[in-house]
Amino acid sequence: MLFFGGDYNPEQWPEEVWAEDVALMRQAGVTVVSLGVFAWSHLEPEEGRYEFGWLDRVLDRLHDGGIKVALATPTASPPPWFTLAHPEGLPVTADGVRLTHGSRDTYCVSAPAYRAAARAIASQLAARYARHPALALWHVHNEYGTDCRCDLTAAAFRSWLRDRHGSLDTLNEAWTTAFWSQRYSNWAQITPPRATRYLPNPAHVLDFRRFLSDELLGAFVEQRDLLRAANPEVPITTNFVQGGWVSVDHARWAAEVDLVAVDHYPAGSGDEAEVETAFGGDLARGWARGEWLLMETAPNLIYTPGRMHAKEPGRLTRHSLSYVARGSRGAMYFQWRQPRGGAELFHSALVPHAGPDSPVFREAVGLGRTLKAIAPHARGRVEARVAVGWDAPSWWALQGGGLPSAGIDYPGAVRQAHRALYHSGVATDFVFPGSDDLGTVLRSYDMVVLPHLYLVSDQAADSLREFVAGGGHLVVGHLSGIADPAGRIRLGGYPGAFRDLLGIRVVEWRPLADGDAVPLDNGDLAIRWSERVETAGATTLVRYAGDVLAGAPAITRHRFGAGAAWYVSPGLDDDATRRLLAEVTGAAGVPPVLPGLPPRVEAVRRGDLLYLFNHGDVSQAVPSPDREVVIPPGGALTIGPA
Amino acid sequence: MLFFGGDYNPEQWPEEVWAEDVALMRQAGVTVVSLGVFAWSHLEPEEGRYEFGWLDRVLDRLHDGGIKVALATPTASPPPWFTLAHPEGLPVTADGVRLTHGSRDTYCVSAPAYRAAARAIASQLAARYARHPALALWHVHNEYGTDCRCDLTAAAFRSWLRDRHGSLDTLNEAWTTAFWSQRYSNWAQITPPRATRYLPNPAHVLDFRRFLSDELLGAFVEQRDLLRAANPEVPITTNFVQGGWVSVDHARWAAEVDLVAVDHYPAGSGDEAEVETAFGGDLARGWARGEWLLMETAPNLIYTPGRMHAKEPGRLTRHSLSYVARGSRGAMYFQWRQPRGGAELFHSALVPHAGPDSPVFREAVGLGRTLKAIAPHARGRVEARVAVGWDAPSWWALQGGGLPSAGIDYPGAVRQAHRALYHSGVATDFVFPGSDDLGTVLRSYDMVVLPHLYLVSDQAADSLREFVAGGGHLVVGHLSGIADPAGRIRLGGYPGAFRDLLGIRVVEWRPLADGDAVPLDNGDLAIRWSERVETAGATTLVRYAGDVLAGAPAITRHRFGAGAAWYVSPGLDDDATRRLLAEVTGAAGVPPVLPGLPPRVEAVRRGDLLYLFNHGDVSQAVPSPDREVVIPPGGALTIGPA
Amino acid sequence: MLFFGGDYNPEQWPEEVWAEDVALMRQAGVTVVSLGVFAWSHLEPEEGRYEFGWLDRVLDRLHDGGIKVALATPTASPPPWFTLAHPEGLPVTADGVRLTHGSRDTYCVSAPAYRAAARAIASQLAARYARHPALALWHVHNEYGTDCRCDLTAAAFRSWLRDRHGSLDTLNEAWTTAFWSQRYSNWAQITPPRATRYLPNPAHVLDFRRFLSDELLGAFVEQRDLLRAANPEVPITTNFVQGGWVSVDHARWAAEVDLVAVDHYPAGSGDEAEVETAFGGDLARGWARGEWLLMETAPNLIYTPGRMHAKEPGRLTRHSLSYVARGSRGAMYFQWRQPRGGAELFHSALVPHAGPDSPVFREAVGLGRTLKAIAPHARGRVEARVAVGWDAPSWWALQGGGLPSAGIDYPGAVRQAHRALYHSGVATDFVFPGSDDLGTVLRSYDMVVLPHLYLVSDQAADSLREFVAGGGHLVVGHLSGIADPAGRIRLGGYPGAFRDLLGIRVVEWRPLADGDAVPLDNGDLAIRWSERVETAGATTLVRYAGDVLAGAPAITRHRFGAGAAWYVSPGLDDDATRRLLAEVTGAAGVPPVLPGLPPRVEAVRRGDLLYLFNHGDVSQAVPSPDREVVIPPGGALTIGPA
Repeated sequence: MLFFGGDYNPEQWPEEVWAEDVALMRQAGVTVVSLGVFAWSHLEPEEGRYEFGWLDRVLDRLHDGGIKVALATPTASPPPWFTLAHPEGLPVTADGVRLTHGSRDTYCVSAPAYRAAARAIASQLAARYARHPALALWHVHNEYGTDCRCDLTAAAFRSWLRDRHGSLDTLNEAWTTAFWSQRYSNWAQITPPRATRYLPNPAHVLDFRRFLSDELLGAFVEQRDLLRAANPEVPITTNFVQGGWVSVDHARWAAEVDLVAVDHYPAGSGDEAEVETAFGGDLARGWARGEWLLMETAPNLIYTPGRMHAKEPGRLTRHSLSYVARGSRGAMYFQWRQPRGGAELFHSALVPHAGPDSPVFREAVGLGRTLKAIAPHARGRVEARVAVGWDAPSWWALQGGGLPSAGIDYPGAVRQAHRALYHSGVATDFVFPGSDDLGTVLRSYDMVVLPHLYLVSDQAADSLREFVAGGGHLVVGHLSGIADPAGRIRLGGYPGAFRDLLGIRVVEWRPLADGDAVPLDNGDLAIRWSERVETAGATTLVRYAGDVLAGAPAITRHRFGAGAAWYVSPGLDDDATRRLLAEVTGAAGVPPVLPGLPPRVEAVRRGDLLYLFNHGDVSQAVPSPDREVVIPPGGALTIGPA
Repeated sequence: MLFFGGDYNPEQWPEEVWAEDVALMRQAGVTVVSLGVFAWSHLEPEEGRYEFGWLDRVLDRLHDGGIKVALATPTASPPPWFTLAHPEGLPVTADGVRLTHGSRDTYCVSAPAYRAAARAIASQLAARYARHPALALWHVHNEYGTDCRCDLTAAAFRSWLRDRHGSLDTLNEAWTTAFWSQRYSNWAQITPPRATRYLPNPAHVLDFRRFLSDELLGAFVEQRDLLRAANPEVPITTNFVQGGWVSVDHARWAAEVDLVAVDHYPAGSGDEAEVETAFGGDLARGWARGEWLLMETAPNLIYTPGRMHAKEPGRLTRHSLSYVARGSRGAMYFQWRQPRGGAELFHSALVPHAGPDSPVFREAVGLGRTLKAIAPHARGRVEARVAVGWDAPSWWALQGGGLPSAGIDYPGAVRQAHRALYHSGVATDFVFPGSDDLGTVLRSYDMVVLPHLYLVSDQAADSLREFVAGGGHLVVGHLSGIADPAGRIRLGGYPGAFRDLLGIRVVEWRPLADGDAVPLDNGDLAIRWSERVETAGATTLVRYAGDVLAGAPAITRHRFGAGAAWYVSPGLDDDATRRLLAEVTGAAGVPPVLPGLPPRVEAVRRGDLLYLFNHGDVSQAVPSPDREVVIPPGGALTIGPA
Repeated sequence: MLFFGGDYNPEQWPEEVWAEDVALMRQAGVTVVSLGVFAWSHLEPEEGRYEFGWLDRVLDRLHDGGIKVALATPTASPPPWFTLAHPEGLPVTADGVRLTHGSRDTYCVSAPAYRAAARAIASQLAARYARHPALALWHVHNEYGTDCRCDLTAAAFRSWLRDRHGSLDTLNEAWTTAFWSQRYSNWAQITPPRATRYLPNPAHVLDFRRFLSDELLGAFVEQRDLLRAANPEVPITTNFVQGGWVSVDHARWAAEVDLVAVDHYPAGSGDEAEVETAFGGDLARGWARGEWLLMETAPNLIYTPGRMHAKEPGRLTRHSLSYVARGSRGAMYFQWRQPRGGAELFHSALVPHAGPDSPVFREAVGLGRTLKAIAPHARGRVEARVAVGWDAPSWWALQGGGLPSAGIDYPGAVRQAHRALYHSGVATDFVFPGSDDLGTVLRSYDMVVLPHLYLVSDQAADSLREFVAGGGHLVVGHLSGIADPAGRIRLGGYPGAFRDLLGIRVVEWRPLADGDAVPLDNGDLAIRWSERVETAGATTLVRYAGDVLAGAPAITRHRFGAGAAWYVSPGLDDDATRRLLAEVTGAAGVPPVLPGLPPRVEAVRRGDLLYLFNHGDVSQAVPSPDREVVIPPGGALTIGPA
């Protein structure tokens, strides 16, 4: 069975709608729904008073309809009564403003009162439903990622810091508190980053983001263990969400869930949406190291900067299959039925305001049929010989205010590398340089690309050295290997962690303003970034050909053991990046999934199935393994098993 | 007599200037001044200690000069002593910041201390001046429109909510609190919208804005009744101001004042300023259902985004007459004499910093002469057979953060409809779909245009149905009829309130990004907005001709009883809007005020007078009713009585 | 000896690095370092417990290396212990947010606890090091310029206001508190400007900025006197920093320091950086009325909007010599060694992350050699016959929110005048119209330019009148002479203070929007600003030639006594400004430093030395006083003594 369904909120509707819901779910081939994600105020309308009757009836009705349930603990949004009873459980901003209810996610995860209330409702649900026959999955909380700067958080942060640093001296050294007279002489002096006069200490901010990730993870684990105790057979997950404001290191969290579940909302109307879908799917598979689950995406209207964008006909199907092709165990949506009110009343749904007599519901019915057809063969592995590095702490470190350029865009740099490989048709994985077993992981790959891997540990640098020495092909972009995990610069010339591996030394950064460019001697342009590079063993492949850097190395390659390490000092546009990485995949002997594809046609192989997507506007003939197939504009085909 | 004058602040000047003031007022033909608007700290320099001597002298001096007075209660700006004595009377922001004095409007209207202080000073003024012979009008407060989120406001809000909703269950249902676990189990849990984690509940925000309107109205009524008791003969008003931040439903307030008074500051240097003047005048007349009063506008320099704009010679005259032509009882300005200091020291005045030897004062003298000349004939009615809908709650509802497009602009959509009719030379009224007597009101019109009437009650929808059934011509734009007054979507296909009347059903919104456009088959373009429309009885007049909507209906007409209802799904530019509405005025048999006008010449008829404005740069010959007249560039003529 | 060195922070480094530091300093010819600027938490790790051993060793090591020390009091950044012990010593924003440590400059200068802590650490340093042989200069604090709105600040502000205004009546009159009912009846009602509803009273804001300047100066004087008492031989300074947010009137402070020290960070990559360097140097010399010291500038990477800019090779040398040529006693940098961590870890340094084997260190070594070579002749006077006016309070007054144009840019207007003279090769000083001895000062000049001198006292206006009457040439730009020092408009026509001197009267401002322009009859354009000017004795040189101002005077000249006063009503572009001021320097008989220079070549004379800079990309031949010299692209030459 593939998961197909979405967030279901019967508490928003009168009971007479529920019957129609199950009938429509059956019509669409829905197999699983996420239930109760924001139902706390309906399950526990007053502290300690529970109302489960309605949920009993919903679960039974779904079960009778043959629909499975991912039952949520509703702890992402405490009811209004929580605010009055436990004001210290509300979060406080860096400016000292205590937030109040009226939206969602308004709680302090370090507040004992919040944790107790969360355990209480989760325990009630576990006790009542852990052995319900409809239960397929526990869905803990929703999109962990909140932030708080209150005094309770401060206490938890200090405790975390003691564990991490051991002593204040070590912390003072790690944070370079000698700068601007910040040396701590007492643990009590340390708070979360709060409103201060000017730039904060970036190491302080970085550790606080690490702390938040661990603190939230602790809250998850607490619920997970309690649910597991109630019935060890039921898998447990929580849905990951990404964003610059989310202090969660999902690569570390993945080890704690039974199934990696991801919310992913690719925006845009053109190619960028397909590429973003591929990026999200590949990254999720990286976290999961195999199969994962798309827990939420938008069926139709999706928020983009400035306005919502309505998906074109067929796009819902193509994107859903793209996730499945990349390792998802199905396709789930936010949401089943579009709400009549509330903050997200325009968020799209499988059953929109217009009702089932609508394009989106009709497309969902067809998609349900397709998913059912491929289900028996759909759960194989995706194989890739190239990996891109992703490192949440490096992202965090590159979000500060004192950086050499406001144009530094960590996810943008990683996406650019992934996009280049996507457009070359090469299957791509993600690896996480902070993994303890990085050395082992790298053995699976022929080629690794590291954009903006700003923070790197000695251990990870060693693993990368071994990877190249053993025959691997490594591409290192600028702003990589700059600092140790605490954020302290590795001295003596950038990139301190990789100078020997790359056979180069960078003695000066020369960030470029928007609109500025420096020519390279291969006809490309350096944009956003340039550097003064000196070689020390590497071969210069491309040189700067203008500005004060004229004649200096820009792109280099260093033979190291049985492999080779490229260094890319300039910022490049997409086309130049694609050509450069294609050169390296060529050197590494990594072929595309399917050679000879026409433009805007994409092939993904998972296990025995080959998925073919035509993202273009005209029909395309594709030489698939056995025969030639024709894909209509905006179409998707699944071929296999052979 | 026509009102001609402005805000007069003698308390800012030494007494020797007062004599010059009266002399200059007489020279300019000033008939009325607004007095004491911000004089609280001079009238009551310490709590309970009053100084009226200076005001006595000012009033007597004005009276001796033959100048009438609109005497203000100064309650819009409590003196600094109020802050120290009653800190709980200061307003609190959504972030919990308690504001302090140092500007204006800094009070909490729900604070008993503020209300008591306001009643006290108003009572003193009433007792002393209610029968002063110079008194022509009471001018209560100034530009009501403040906001507060404090605990006193919370208590008043809860009381208002109990009155509106009766029970918590009804409120929970109306606000869809099932979304994001917001169900209230106790009235005490409800606060004003305050800083919270993410998007607020839009129904909560909407009701808070309605509450603010009623709460401020309560403060006005309190003063009004007290002044009326002192002398029932003197009319009472308060000056309305508009803006996205002003939570006042002026259509409802209008019933509570004896004369609708409006502050209006049209910005811009080109045609947009004339059109904005017309819009302000027509809307004010709509509120008043007849004669109103322009209480404030800028004589010269006017704030516009980025800089102040100085009016061109003649524009002060043209705009002033345009307001009078549209129903104003005169033309009043902020302000008589430009201040030497204070926050608005560059705000223009009839007597500027340069003194009376200045272009603005000279133009004022001429204008005073003109107003005196037309006064005997100037107070007739303006007749219009077309009306545009204006609905403050719909505006409020369309200001939130979770809308389908950030480009939704409620006043922009209404202005566009009004501008289209203005450029066709058609006299236009405004109607207010929230009026209890909407059905009766609509009987006066042949044609009604409803842009973005997002919220609509069943009763209003019925009245509109009757209007069309009885032979009316209705034009409904997209984003109309979407929700009930609580903000809950009307399900089954947009626009839920008008599907049967329009004979269509919208099954999908497709908002357009800035710069995007979808062609229509009549050569126009859909911009900002497109939709998938299905007809159900309506005739398709225009179809989409591109994008995934190609071939689908864009503009439709539905014969309904003796009338017809148009639906306009795409966003259109000004020119397309003008042509479309001209087609409907043609169908409705509504003629322009004066046919055959040259470009940039405008004709307005009020009672027996015909006003002709030449907004262009060259002289224009106009065939007026009896003869041909020539209007110089930037000129204004008044013709009549015939 | 010329000062050559930078901020040195040995507390950030292990002691083994110190030896390398001194060796590298000697290699580079460093003569002086700034020591201990942010060392408080290392000098006093807990309140009252001092650790001076490390500083003893550093000082001795530097002394042994022949390097002098500008020893700082570290009071700009209290250690974290201060926060816990004295929370009332932390600053509060206008919104009431109390900031906390974690950055720098986080203290309230009006808090007795802060002042006591600052005196204590300064006293300790004075007692221990006042007679250390390496000590060349006391460097008090760092970049005074903080702001606080707390109750302690309020008390200090009230005390300052009593001194300034004497009585509440005077204050009410000066602040025009009659506007918006702000009359104070008790001193306790006055607070710093805090969050309020709408625009604040500009006079309140202006006086608060004056207060902050004086309050910070009091804190400086307190330390200065204490250090002076310990050893009257050692000069004392504090480094000035400029910025729109810095409420320091440096022209007044200059009288209180023994040597004016300035931090200056010219941004930009093209000509604007050279011109900004010249501006900073000339302004600093103006404050100092002679020799000053460049205390900080960036050796290489420098923050600019959007990104850091890396200096081109040679620019470090050229800029450093430009400062020396303009009166600096040397060239000091922030910083000696680039830090491994902290908020400014990318701020450039003489010894960068890459170490001494780097372009920046190599250029520093060469520069050190050059400075040593010119040192014996480098400390003469710079002579100029033209001065531009600079007035911090006018800048403050033109930063508010209710101004006639958001495009008003006080420093921009002053820079434009200076730039025009720079490009004409004319040596330029700065004068400060708020100086008590302005009349005397003006006697040294033939020509004075006053851009945007918005506030002016009667006394300064008299001095300017005498200057012209005595034969001087004065150029007054728009927005000058508008208000008295309290910010009250001078009535009767702008510019009230200068109408008689200029022989004109401005009756109407007509600010221009971005992109708008009004032609002038000499072919130039009015941009940003236009006005309706009437002459009253002046000769019209240029007229407006379009818009409603067509035919009205734009630029006028008034013979007054033995001199002439020009009025420039329009905003002009750089080229028109240069031509206009060149006409006036011609009339005043002021020659360039060196006639006949090729483009982008600059000549500066200081005492016996002539500095020649080639800012262009090609070699240039220059006819220097005695012979012709050739300057390579980006080169700098020093010629002399003759």
